[in-house]
Amino acid sequence: MLSTCLARWGYKIKHIDNRAEPTPTGRADGIQPRSLDLLRNMGLKSAIMAHKPARVFEVAFWDPPLPQAGNDKGKGIVRTGTWASCPAFIDARYPFTTLLHQGLIERVFIADLEKHGVSIQRPWTIQDFRSDEAANPDYPVEVDIAHVDGSARETVRAKYLFSGEGARSFVRDKLGIRITHKDPISHVWGVMDGVVNTDFPDIKMKCTIHSEHGSIMVIPRENDMVRLYIQLASSTDADFNPRKTATEQEVQTSAKKILEPYFIEWERVEWYSVYPIGQGIAEKYTLDHRVFLGGDACHTHSPKAGQGMNTAFLDAQNLAWKLHAVESGFADRALLRTYEPERRAVAESLLNFDNRYAKLFSQRPTTDAVHAATTTTSTQQQQSAAEDNDFIKTFKESCAFTSGYGVAYAANAVNWSSSSPLPQCPRPDLVRAWPRGTRLRPGHLFINADVTRVVDANVVHLEQQIPLNGAFRIFVFAGRAAGSSSPTSSSHARRNKAAAALRDFASHVFTPSSSSSPPSQQTQHPSQSFLTAHLRPDLARVSRHEVLTPHSRFFTFSTVIAAPRASVEIARDVPAPLARYRDLVFADDRVPSGGGGIGSAHAKMGFRLGGEGEWEEGEGEGAVVVVRPDGYVGVVVSLVEGSGTADVLNAYFDSFCAKKIGSSSSSGAAGAGADVGLETPVRAQL
Amino acid sequence: MLSTCLARWGYKIKHIDNRAEPTPTGRADGIQPRSLDLLRNMGLKSAIMAHKPARVFEVAFWDPPLPQAGNDKGKGIVRTGTWASCPAFIDARYPFTTLLHQGLIERVFIADLEKHGVSIQRPWTIQDFRSDEAANPDYPVEVDIAHVDGSARETVRAKYLFSGEGARSFVRDKLGIRITHKDPISHVWGVMDGVVNTDFPDIKMKCTIHSEHGSIMVIPRENDMVRLYIQLASSTDADFNPRKTATEQEVQTSAKKILEPYFIEWERVEWYSVYPIGQGIAEKYTLDHRVFLGGDACHTHSPKAGQGMNTAFLDAQNLAWKLHAVESGFADRALLRTYEPERRAVAESLLNFDNRYAKLFSQRPTTDAVHAATTTTSTQQQQSAAEDNDFIKTFKESCAFTSGYGVAYAANAVNWSSSSPLPQCPRPDLVRAWPRGTRLRPGHLFINADVTRVVDANVVHLEQQIPLNGAFRIFVFAGRAAGSSSPTSSSHARRNKAAAALRDFASHVFTPSSSSSPPSQQTQHPSQSFLTAHLRPDLARVSRHEVLTPHSRFFTFSTVIAAPRASVEIARDVPAPLARYRDLVFADDRVPSGGGGIGSAHAKMGFRLGGEGEWEEGEGEGAVVVVRPDGYVGVVVSLVEGSGTADVLNAYFDSFCAKKIGSSSSSGAAGAGADVGLETPVRAQL
Repeated sequence: MLSTCLARWGYKIKHIDNRAEPTPTGRADGIQPRSLDLLRNMGLKSAIMAHKPARVFEVAFWDPPLPQAGNDKGKGIVRTGTWASCPAFIDARYPFTTLLHQGLIERVFIADLEKHGVSIQRPWTIQDFRSDEAANPDYPVEVDIAHVDGSARETVRAKYLFSGEGARSFVRDKLGIRITHKDPISHVWGVMDGVVNTDFPDIKMKCTIHSEHGSIMVIPRENDMVRLYIQLASSTDADFNPRKTATEQEVQTSAKKILEPYFIEWERVEWYSVYPIGQGIAEKYTLDHRVFLGGDACHTHSPKAGQGMNTAFLDAQNLAWKLHAVESGFADRALLRTYEPERRAVAESLLNFDNRYAKLFSQRPTTDAVHAATTTTSTQQQQSAAEDNDFIKTFKESCAFTSGYGVAYAANAVNWSSSSPLPQCPRPDLVRAWPRGTRLRPGHLFINADVTRVVDANVVHLEQQIPLNGAFRIFVFAGRAAGSSSPTSSSHARRNKAAAALRDFASHVFTPSSSSSPPSQQTQHPSQSFLTAHLRPDLARVSRHEVLTPHSRFFTFSTVIAAPRASVEIARDVPAPLARYRDLVFADDRVPSGGGGIGSAHAKMGFRLGGEGEWEEGEGEGAVVVVRPDGYVGVVVSLVEGSGTADVLNAYFDSFCAKKIGSSSSSGAAGAGADVGLETPVRAQL
Repeated sequence: MLSTCLARWGYKIKHIDNRAEPTPTGRADGIQPRSLDLLRNMGLKSAIMAHKPARVFEVAFWDPPLPQAGNDKGKGIVRTGTWASCPAFIDARYPFTTLLHQGLIERVFIADLEKHGVSIQRPWTIQDFRSDEAANPDYPVEVDIAHVDGSARETVRAKYLFSGEGARSFVRDKLGIRITHKDPISHVWGVMDGVVNTDFPDIKMKCTIHSEHGSIMVIPRENDMVRLYIQLASSTDADFNPRKTATEQEVQTSAKKILEPYFIEWERVEWYSVYPIGQGIAEKYTLDHRVFLGGDACHTHSPKAGQGMNTAFLDAQNLAWKLHAVESGFADRALLRTYEPERRAVAESLLNFDNRYAKLFSQRPTTDAVHAATTTTSTQQQQSAAEDNDFIKTFKESCAFTSGYGVAYAANAVNWSSSSPLPQCPRPDLVRAWPRGTRLRPGHLFINADVTRVVDANVVHLEQQIPLNGAFRIFVFAGRAAGSSSPTSSSHARRNKAAAALRDFASHVFTPSSSSSPPSQQTQHPSQSFLTAHLRPDLARVSRHEVLTPHSRFFTFSTVIAAPRASVEIARDVPAPLARYRDLVFADDRVPSGGGGIGSAHAKMGFRLGGEGEWEEGEGEGAVVVVRPDGYVGVVVSLVEGSGTADVLNAYFDSFCAKKIGSSSSSGAAGAGADVGLETPVRAQL
């Protein structure tokens, strides 16, 4: 994931792997709903789905039957319930877990790397490394690598070293970073992939089976395969031996007993492994912000919830865009300091969750409770949250977390939470004051919404329209800023105000020096905005086919107008520099299944369009949402007339960008570009 | 399409093409909604979509403005309306036209052919052919082919010859088949694919533009391209010359004038062609049912509605399954006689439509009328049909036809319309008597519906669950034949009756000789059913991984039960032979956006589940739907207790199958297989 992102963004990578070939069988296999969104955002989803993976929509629970008359003393197992694996309240695009073996997933990344000129050097391993910023500020890391058979060696100078080596990380050990354990109990697991013949009816479902003979987890796989996880030993056992082994035959015999009265036979075993695992978390993810750890090198836990690979994806993606932001000169080096706290907090949650998950499963909730938990829709959720009992609350949190939609980051320089102090913010009222409320929360994922693309009337998923390209995504929810109603119509005044707010925002962002602010305020405003401070040096020569980052490599803008598509005229309603992102102008006019229509995407974000009388002084009906390159919300700002909205965004980017706004441009080309390529046409059209 | 189907089904094919390579640019480019369903059913859709084709959701109409004060005397063009290209009432899975150039589509088929061992021999052409069934009943066709440069020749003996040569078909001419013209007017068209720079706002939409300088059609394409069709001359012109030519430059100059006041410039022209075209239809599609024609060799018309390739797909698919049915010994050779009437009637409709389409476009309907036409849902459609005005009716028929969903076949041996005489049918009441009505019509497409697969809780599209494999698809809508409610519950009796009807059907189809009919009726029933008459010779050795055609190569069964998924226990609720199609057992429990829930798919087909008191004597609540291998409904039969349902299916297949039911098996292996592989386990479980 890290190599793929960086290779796409033009960085030179040495990627080594100590295995002679990509994972041939087994290992991680579950792609959670939100990870599938991410893979789609990278253009990799269809290659994954081409393998026809299994899709898990529901989890089934099997337990011994309660003893009762006519029942064979509670022997055997019965299905005691089923849960949606990603219930409707999550609002996932793909409400299922996608299962296929790690090797197939790896190959999709490897193929993408090859397209970008990177081939993995294998079987090579790391032997030593040193990092000394003082001695070599440009390439402070020196790494000794060698072929696993010792036949060849290299020493590589690098800007960064990333260890995705897994639980037994050499890099982590060499750095002396300790692993702490949340739960002192460790387990020995047996895992077996294969093709089985069975009359167990839920063999194609994810199942948790408890019987008097032990417990087993069933996970369906691609190609009619199934994975069985069996807990073979626990450190709570009197005779616990973490080196416990078991033969294939022994595990199969156990499985047969647990599944009684159903039969199970193996046609083929593709992979079999026994391994001890305990919960662990690395105390640090980096010491010097040059050598980083991620994935299993930082956190280990049980395989039950299928979180390992998904968490590793997000570790890597989080680091990738930050490295890019720093190395491209956009962000202050301090941005890298957010990697560890953001990702380590998620790992902490994962470990806490891992404990709760087992408890939750053993709770045997009533069908009614699960029904209540799973059938609530996302909009109902907020209202009824207070009424939920503890079980439902835990269940919902678990679903949100395991699906990936619940992963969130705390307030920091890039996540401007409205509830935290915002010392740098010139207009905290625009970040805090949400009289009508917003459901978008900084540090959380941008919310999924359907909209209609104006240029071709295609119905699209708004959150997927900007690919993972390393740029910040700036969504301008412009309210009802479109249409050509007669000036006497009752909604005309609102529309004019919304249109004015949109125009003012565009003007202060794209042509700050020519803004129409009164002279008295002019001095308060810098002659640059976050955008003009980071213009492309080749601005004057940018092809019109460059639709994502025509002005700056670091920003992609999208405008969403609450109006029927056919009533939006881009040339009339969208300021020219925003209209330059022509394929990213959307009409918010979809009718979702839960009702709605015009403005339903605004409403979903919490930007409810008020009635005629509700427009308050200094308040807009729209908002600007800054989404980080990884899809997490950075800041949400009311869209108002005047310079306020742009001022907040300037302050937001100033808080972590290398080049401070108002400071003279460090690159003459950018400044010149602004004159030649941007201001002239913009001025002509505004 | 024909070669791909036949190659997949194991036939030996010689496919020649007189072009040296697949279409490099231009030609046909529009895949209509229903064709995309078909490509998905063949597993080819994702390869098509990987090219990122344009998707047309709406059509825009541009005309000169009405002269009015302040307006420049009606000069230039304005948008006068937009229509959904596939409105909601069509109920399409993909309500858009998919646009990419023919070469990309061809290559997907060519790659599939290569997977099945067929490579296209090119550039080769046909020189002569003879067909004499008397002289050689097995391979009656002899074809002389040659390399286009004359350097090589071959004579090929074949069972069949198919001409997909296009409008100037050598085969058609040699057979002396005449072309008739519906509309005497012919046109000269200019067509240009390229990348343009323009401020015309609808350049990414399908547009019909009329201006004082002429008319143009805009079609967006993959890779930011656009296709422009310009009508250069019409045979109604005084100086009409069908050989009229025009240079690229001339066409561009015309386009520039037509688009005024917008500008348009070409960055690149990928393809440019001028061709005369008239409406024509071949009088015959075959003379001897050995040499067939399809595609443009049979029908030509204007390119406006994007129907050429789509109609050709269906010609080929229609012939493919019939050839397979005959050559595999399943159907009587007479089945081939349905190809021409079925497909020629569609071509007649297409030509009629082609005329009406132009008129429709010029009608300039009010926005309200189009709104009324496009926002009606499929369920509302029936009720309000009577109220529609002529325009709306024509518009709806046009949408249905162009989307492909409206293509339908008349009653014949394979389409048992309930309104036609059914002399062979032993129980016409079960085909005719639909007290609660059905929306499924023989000769029309099976209706799309969402259901939940029981084994893995996956939400799926029912109509896509059986791939185009040459087999008939038998959908058993079993009503509420599931669950284990206590015998005292009020719905118990209904459930028991539904379950009994399902059991009886399975018994009479899969083990007819052991049916539980009273002895007095036993003699009326043959000892074979349509299924047991066509068992696989290798029945006893069929792998359990063969999930589509485990009993017979000619039939795939699917069972749909109106019950929540978790309440369906396949082992208890589905008779063993139907449970053998384990992945094709579905719970009809989806909640569509229009409401519904349990039984919504039944309801969509028109099998409404009545209340407790509504069950009438001899009537079931479910039905068996026979869908032809090409996705069109063959017959719909009420599912009732006793042998009636199976009797009707026996008669249906008897009407066109080679082997008549009750006649002794022509293959000893099938009979033996029945004893060993089917009857024993079935008997044990029923």
